[in-house]
Amino acid sequence: MNISELEKILRRFKEGSIGEREVLQELKSAAVHSLDFAQIDQVRELRQGFPEVVFCQGKTPEQVVEISEKIFRRNGKVLATRASAELFEFVRHRVPELKYNEKARCIHSPFPSEVPEAAGKIAVITAGTSDIPVAEEAVVTCRLFGFKPHPIYDVGVAGLHRLNNHWPAIGNARVLIVIAGMEGALASVVGGLVDRPVIAVPTSVGYGTSFQGLTALFAMLNSCSSNVTVVNIDNGFGAGFSASLILRQILDHS
Amino acid sequence: MNISELEKILRRFKEGSIGEREVLQELKSAAVHSLDFAQIDQVRELRQGFPEVVFCQGKTPEQVVEISEKIFRRNGKVLATRASAELFEFVRHRVPELKYNEKARCIHSPFPSEVPEAAGKIAVITAGTSDIPVAEEAVVTCRLFGFKPHPIYDVGVAGLHRLNNHWPAIGNARVLIVIAGMEGALASVVGGLVDRPVIAVPTSVGYGTSFQGLTALFAMLNSCSSNVTVVNIDNGFGAGFSASLILRQILDHS
Amino acid sequence: MNISELEKILRRFKEGSIGEREVLQELKSAAVHSLDFAQIDQVRELRQGFPEVVFCQGKTPEQVVEISEKIFRRNGKVLATRASAELFEFVRHRVPELKYNEKARCIHSPFPSEVPEAAGKIAVITAGTSDIPVAEEAVVTCRLFGFKPHPIYDVGVAGLHRLNNHWPAIGNARVLIVIAGMEGALASVVGGLVDRPVIAVPTSVGYGTSFQGLTALFAMLNSCSSNVTVVNIDNGFGAGFSASLILRQILDHS
Amino acid sequence: MNISELEKILRRFKEGSIGEREVLQELKSAAVHSLDFAQIDQVRELRQGFPEVVFCQGKTPEQVVEISEKIFRRNGKVLATRASAELFEFVRHRVPELKYNEKARCIHSPFPSEVPEAAGKIAVITAGTSDIPVAEEAVVTCRLFGFKPHPIYDVGVAGLHRLNNHWPAIGNARVLIVIAGMEGALASVVGGLVDRPVIAVPTSVGYGTSFQGLTALFAMLNSCSSNVTVVNIDNGFGAGFSASLILRQILDHS
Amino acid sequence: MNISELEKILRRFKEGSIGEREVLQELKSAAVHSLDFAQIDQVRELRQGFPEVVFCQGKTPEQVVEISEKIFRRNGKVLATRASAELFEFVRHRVPELKYNEKARCIHSPFPSEVPEAAGKIAVITAGTSDIPVAEEAVVTCRLFGFKPHPIYDVGVAGLHRLNNHWPAIGNARVLIVIAGMEGALASVVGGLVDRPVIAVPTSVGYGTSFQGLTALFAMLNSCSSNVTVVNIDNGFGAGFSASLILRQILDHS
Amino acid sequence: MNISELEKILRRFKEGSIGEREVLQELKSAAVHSLDFAQIDQVRELRQGFPEVVFCQGKTPEQVVEISEKIFRRNGKVLATRASAELFEFVRHRVPELKYNEKARCIHSPFPSEVPEAAGKIAVITAGTSDIPVAEEAVVTCRLFGFKPHPIYDVGVAGLHRLNNHWPAIGNARVLIVIAGMEGALASVVGGLVDRPVIAVPTSVGYGTSFQGLTALFAMLNSCSSNVTVVNIDNGFGAGFSASLILRQILDHS
Amino acid sequence: MNISELEKILRRFKEGSIGEREVLQELKSAAVHSLDFAQIDQVRELRQGFPEVVFCQGKTPEQVVEISEKIFRRNGKVLATRASAELFEFVRHRVPELKYNEKARCIHSPFPSEVPEAAGKIAVITAGTSDIPVAEEAVVTCRLFGFKPHPIYDVGVAGLHRLNNHWPAIGNARVLIVIAGMEGALASVVGGLVDRPVIAVPTSVGYGTSFQGLTALFAMLNSCSSNVTVVNIDNGFGAGFSASLILRQILDHS
Amino acid sequence: MNISELEKILRRFKEGSIGEREVLQELKSAAVHSLDFAQIDQVRELRQGFPEVVFCQGKTPEQVVEISEKIFRRNGKVLATRASAELFEFVRHRVPELKYNEKARCIHSPFPSEVPEAAGKIAVITAGTSDIPVAEEAVVTCRLFGFKPHPIYDVGVAGLHRLNNHWPAIGNARVLIVIAGMEGALASVVGGLVDRPVIAVPTSVGYGTSFQGLTALFAMLNSCSSNVTVVNIDNGFGAGFSASLILRQILDHS
Repeated sequence: MNISELEKILRRFKEGSIGEREVLQELKSAAVHSLDFAQIDQVRELRQGFPEVVFCQGKTPEQVVEISEKIFRRNGKVLATRASAELFEFVRHRVPELKYNEKARCIHSPFPSEVPEAAGKIAVITAGTSDIPVAEEAVVTCRLFGFKPHPIYDVGVAGLHRLNNHWPAIGNARVLIVIAGMEGALASVVGGLVDRPVIAVPTSVGYGTSFQGLTALFAMLNSCSSNVTVVNIDNGFGAGFSASLILRQILDHS
Repeated sequence: MNISELEKILRRFKEGSIGEREVLQELKSAAVHSLDFAQIDQVRELRQGFPEVVFCQGKTPEQVVEISEKIFRRNGKVLATRASAELFEFVRHRVPELKYNEKARCIHSPFPSEVPEAAGKIAVITAGTSDIPVAEEAVVTCRLFGFKPHPIYDVGVAGLHRLNNHWPAIGNARVLIVIAGMEGALASVVGGLVDRPVIAVPTSVGYGTSFQGLTALFAMLNSCSSNVTVVNIDNGFGAGFSASLILRQILDHS
Repeated sequence: MNISELEKILRRFKEGSIGEREVLQELKSAAVHSLDFAQIDQVRELRQGFPEVVFCQGKTPEQVVEISEKIFRRNGKVLATRASAELFEFVRHRVPELKYNEKARCIHSPFPSEVPEAAGKIAVITAGTSDIPVAEEAVVTCRLFGFKPHPIYDVGVAGLHRLNNHWPAIGNARVLIVIAGMEGALASVVGGLVDRPVIAVPTSVGYGTSFQGLTALFAMLNSCSSNVTVVNIDNGFGAGFSASLILRQILDHS
Repeated sequence: MNISELEKILRRFKEGSIGEREVLQELKSAAVHSLDFAQIDQVRELRQGFPEVVFCQGKTPEQVVEISEKIFRRNGKVLATRASAELFEFVRHRVPELKYNEKARCIHSPFPSEVPEAAGKIAVITAGTSDIPVAEEAVVTCRLFGFKPHPIYDVGVAGLHRLNNHWPAIGNARVLIVIAGMEGALASVVGGLVDRPVIAVPTSVGYGTSFQGLTALFAMLNSCSSNVTVVNIDNGFGAGFSASLILRQILDHS
Repeated sequence: MNISELEKILRRFKEGSIGEREVLQELKSAAVHSLDFAQIDQVRELRQGFPEVVFCQGKTPEQVVEISEKIFRRNGKVLATRASAELFEFVRHRVPELKYNEKARCIHSPFPSEVPEAAGKIAVITAGTSDIPVAEEAVVTCRLFGFKPHPIYDVGVAGLHRLNNHWPAIGNARVLIVIAGMEGALASVVGGLVDRPVIAVPTSVGYGTSFQGLTALFAMLNSCSSNVTVVNIDNGFGAGFSASLILRQILDHS
Repeated sequence: MNISELEKILRRFKEGSIGEREVLQELKSAAVHSLDFAQIDQVRELRQGFPEVVFCQGKTPEQVVEISEKIFRRNGKVLATRASAELFEFVRHRVPELKYNEKARCIHSPFPSEVPEAAGKIAVITAGTSDIPVAEEAVVTCRLFGFKPHPIYDVGVAGLHRLNNHWPAIGNARVLIVIAGMEGALASVVGGLVDRPVIAVPTSVGYGTSFQGLTALFAMLNSCSSNVTVVNIDNGFGAGFSASLILRQILDHS
Repeated sequence: MNISELEKILRRFKEGSIGEREVLQELKSAAVHSLDFAQIDQVRELRQGFPEVVFCQGKTPEQVVEISEKIFRRNGKVLATRASAELFEFVRHRVPELKYNEKARCIHSPFPSEVPEAAGKIAVITAGTSDIPVAEEAVVTCRLFGFKPHPIYDVGVAGLHRLNNHWPAIGNARVLIVIAGMEGALASVVGGLVDRPVIAVPTSVGYGTSFQGLTALFAMLNSCSSNVTVVNIDNGFGAGFSASLILRQILDHS
Repeated sequence: MNISELEKILRRFKEGSIGEREVLQELKSAAVHSLDFAQIDQVRELRQGFPEVVFCQGKTPEQVVEISEKIFRRNGKVLATRASAELFEFVRHRVPELKYNEKARCIHSPFPSEVPEAAGKIAVITAGTSDIPVAEEAVVTCRLFGFKPHPIYDVGVAGLHRLNNHWPAIGNARVLIVIAGMEGALASVVGGLVDRPVIAVPTSVGYGTSFQGLTALFAMLNSCSSNVTVVNIDNGFGAGFSASLILRQILDHS
């Protein structure tokens, strides 16, 4: 249930076409859709501006289908992350409207039409080619909010001049998502050059003392640039989500 | 050097009262103020909207005074974190304009006049009483940006109803800073209730397996609420900085 | 050998139908059933109120069958955890009385008839859908004690209102098992709302800094709610075991 | 506010001596006592059967006094853990009713009269002499619930026969708290001998790879005895709290 | 080259049947047998009383064969650990004299005839059934020294009485190898009961906070029994090796 | 673009055969070759004396081919590390000039002709046979610089006399690469014997507390020999790269 | 109570000068001497050949005095480790017979007369000067068993030739204790040169990635020399204890 | 003993003024100077080109004096690191020739005259002001080799343009030492800009997840710049030592 659905119900109540009990009934049944194995949080879009997201790892294909369909049917919008191509094959038979982004490993509903971004954009920057899947997860998330981020890939600190070609796009960004594995230094470097919030995503790219992304994570948390906040390793979704919330507020307010 | 100083120089150049060489000279000398032991980054306010911040730990009192004074004289603004009361005694003799906030352990220049916050506020929320020093560091930082955050202290998850009293303030916030030690659960709980960006600050409060804040940090990075980003342990400054950047963009754009 | 078997032997000794030597012989042979590779602890039910449990990981199928059968034949009760469906196929041919619970990955003897729970119940609560296998392991364990827990699944802190629907069941519980991965915050939240013992089970659900359950574990050990104790990661069995011991004492005493 | 105070208010409401507004007022003001730096959770005794506990570390003496006094005046009961003797000197001037237990490092209100323990006792067992402060914290906590535990100190596994002398007390215990540092083996050994819940407390006693209690903690979480649950390192309070909740239920129900 | 071979060469030199140059030639060529990829340490038996041991993990089958054959042909003795059954198939075609012990995952030369153990034995004790492969690796190693250890398997601390049946064997042991995963408590318990050196081997048996054997390792290093020394996780070979060196010295000296 | 190509362009500019705009155009297009997924750093050879290296892990075969070909066509030189034999099959169809070194898991362009090493050599020393793949990665890297290192394999500290045979080669080395897993002691021992820089490479060879190379890494960082610097675990490439830079400087300068 | 005291009692029983009850009484009171805070294990010398050892850290001076005196009065032998000079001042007033070894930080009873060591000695070898306190703790322990070890200090691997001067002593040793911090390589090097058991003691000497001895510990556990077993960090006592047990068996048996 | 002393002895031998026995005697007594607690490695300068260095931490002042004096008297050169000002007071009374560098916390012999550096210099670069003590330790070490490094302090990545001012010095450097705490990104950035060997030194500057330098260490080991090798945390000495060895070879060879 999203805000416009709620408004419809309340308007009908005001008009007298439904009574108090019906309103409560509607709200209550909307609030939590109870499956055997999952309490789908149907009012999350109301609270958070985005429906519940399905993290596929550790769920059976049946559970993913069941939950995704319920969310999609109620909200017209759904995102399932960490989904394999096989899982998508399984899901599309039940919910043919859904799409699959292979690089991002995401199943998602069709993107809404793009929000005009007079106010600037989200930039998604990666240090290396291997970081792209995480970047694409962030991009898909932003797209579901109606934002189309500007991608700047493979500009890690071993060849900083590569960053130079992208100054106009970086300067135009209202929020920057910086994605890097190994030593994660790109977040500090980019952060030191802009006066905008930077959301850093460590990735599990690397070997040995990269510790599957821990080193990048800790480096980013220690960034000497003050405008850097951090999300979990490989969590492109979370970065896209928070960046979109920020951009939405800027737009809402303007 | 801030933007208005730069504009003055350029205007004088346009008027012909100074030549090209003088402009270059001015810019160059402004860019890096070179002490023996520190290259003060005097144009950081231009780039980042805030002058360089002095992290006092590991610096001698002489170094702190030297650097703080230089920054303050050029920018009219300075913040020195992790400063003891003794250190402040030392500093105030050289730079009597500076203030000290004991709870926050910060030396800072006088706060600028408050920016009208028609668009909402920053909320600073702590789980416990022991988390307050970190919260106050965030508050001081926001104050130097011209924002006055709404403090909500000691509302941890062991008694969630305490949070209820503060819904109006929470609902009015555009950005929320959530500060917690021990298991850090408050970030997830608050994050699950709002559609605004939440910046979580783990604190070193706790014992045993709190690991000086690591457990709270990892819990926050694993938050099942998608709108949570995280900064380093006890880093109230970083949270205040990023929150202020976000709020400034919202206001700039409106 | 359980208490009633022992009583029978002692009564026959008192009646004179067996001599002292026979009693000793019986006790000794009962005490440890010696296989080549395992010393089955046949009097554990006497000491602990439950026969030895078979942890299948790291054992060959032959070893599992051999041990399970011996325990089942002597005690009429057996539980084998971390068992794959393939392993069960292997076991059922030798011990056809045994059952398999796929979600819980447990092989077990038929459940005893249910103990009347006038005094209240055990509640088994999970944060997410992916935590259900661990929950089911706890449920199977309780069932073998004669208790049927009340399951409340997928009510994690990102949507706390989902918990509301379950207050009657929670209020009625004498012991609560709370199962959560990622940041493990649910244990603190539930713990803060009840005056009953809470046994928290961290799960390996999550990625990145969830560290296969370590973050949830440490968060739970740091719970700001004082009534929380913790078991090993994914150890649904241990939680069910301790919860059942507590409930049995309450009932025994009443 | 405890249950009997609440009953008084409700009875006066029923009698008509106070109106609905007064009841609400009373409840609301009781619920959260708001200081500048702390939201005291005054109805926690209602919810949890024990008022909020003050963890002194990281709090200023002024804060400890302020909070302790408020809790004590409202509930007639208070416990402050990790308190130094100096802190107690400070506190006793404001709240002369409070006591100090040096071994346990606890400030506490006078113990209530002892609950008759027909149903059995709590046993508090330590591996070594150095573990006694943690044990005493557990004991003080139980005393505030009205229970007087049976102490069995310095019976670690390097000399298991020392345990033998204490079988009657161990057999009589309904809940056992086992406290050990170093390798923490005592929890498994005791757990393997009884059919009662065992709450294990790892302590920071040891050196080198004891890792300030982590090794004992992990050993206890891996206990091959199924009836062991665990609390944070050195958390005698938590163990005493959970043990008391269990014993109270047994007694309540009988 | 072992001592008796050396004696033969020296005796022939003394008898004049070979000259000084031949002795030196023989010694030099014996000392290091140089393959392309390995410098086989052929005089290790002289120095250490046992030829170089082949750790198969990370070596190609060709390398294992090449090295094992060289060692076996020169010393008449060889041990290759961590060897799969497939690897043995490969090896036996080139060196048909070698045997394979599947439980121990060891390829080895035929055992020498047993040394009379008037002076006592090595006892190999495991906590559980899953620890047996590590125990067998220790046994095979001892057998190659000519010692036949006394195995006592599956006597972990959750059922200590199982240990009782084995007192005579334990009392007769000159060195004890104690093998345990999970919490590793058995080493402390056994160590506390004997006045002989105990070599503890942690195993990777367990899950969650067993950390693949780290918890058992640290527990053993913290043993409150003073006679416990420790080897690497799952290192049955090392324990067998050191135990055999000790027993050999006792026998040599008698 | 390498230095000689740049010189050609500049000479043609001086001769007037190209104009300023063409020079700039050439430089700019050379600087970053932009693919969709990668910004190839074509001037890295100018800056670093070696073109960008392709780390194959985490890249699709298509990406590896695309990048490798671009680098090879421009620079006549390319190195791709962590490449499987399958990947090479894929690559060789598009770039048949490239070679594959199976032991080193490297795809590389043909080696340049050998630089005369009047001044000495690089020695590559391993502790065991299992460390050879890492050593070979170092060798391939040096070969691409035109240096042919002296390999000394399997001379670990358990049989130090094996090192003796190689003193002439060790004494002749200008830089030494020491590669070892397990306890990594060889770096200290070799370092203590020479007055040349030693680059230590920890390897993931070992088990249990070798922690996939961490123990060797930390041991090497703690080397009591002062001339040891360290690279990441299994990073033969990095060691070969730094060793070659050092040797090149010695030769350049002579 | 040691063996000769026991024999006296039993002989008097045989002679009829005491009855069965007295024997039992004597044994029982001997077995555990019960103080308020400690169950002194008075028969440990019977079981372990050495009375209980007092680990002073975490005990009050009063507790140390009380326990040490009891042990000394009964056994004529006592060892208290990790004792400061201040603590000894306190102890010596009550038990003037006791000695203090400052380097070893040990309080101990006078050494027994030296056991003739026809069969060889214990060698105690350190890598550096800073490791000497740990070595001296081992030496004091051995002295209390009647053995006088051969000390070889400061012969670390950065200057291996220093070891050469000590070959006669090393060759004569039956057991070797090797003590090293930092990278701990000395244990492997010494282990590779002898066919005797080596007990390695990691020390907390070092900085950075020495991790207070963890790196040395892990390196020693990974030793490529098969005859190395390990004790806890800085645990000179444990090494001396185990080495003495081994030597005593060799002598007993001869 | 250094090379020129050795040459003198050998020349006198050739001239016949001393015999073979005297040569051997001289060499032997020179090789290891044996104190009670230290085997001073007097020929290390011969082997390593620099006498043994005294690491003061964990040594008594007496030991430091004794060792330093011996080394200084024999070699005319000595370096003692991690020395407090108090320690120097103690030392200077015995060895008045020695100097103290407070920033570097080093006691050292007077610097030799500067080696002409036609071939280039060592650059010592720090990210922040707090890293200077580590940098100065590197500088003192280089000075004792006769090299005077070029210091470039406080140019961290949050303000990269500060680096620009120093390009001439950076370009002129033959070896670069890069010193940084927190996220350690400066090593990668500098490494990516030069074709010279970079020795990175992580420092313990920072808080929270800087883990006393571990994060910087791991980031540097993961550097995407291939020319970076790393030394232990805060190990300015080691970096200066290795850099000097490299530069000396370049000069020796020219």
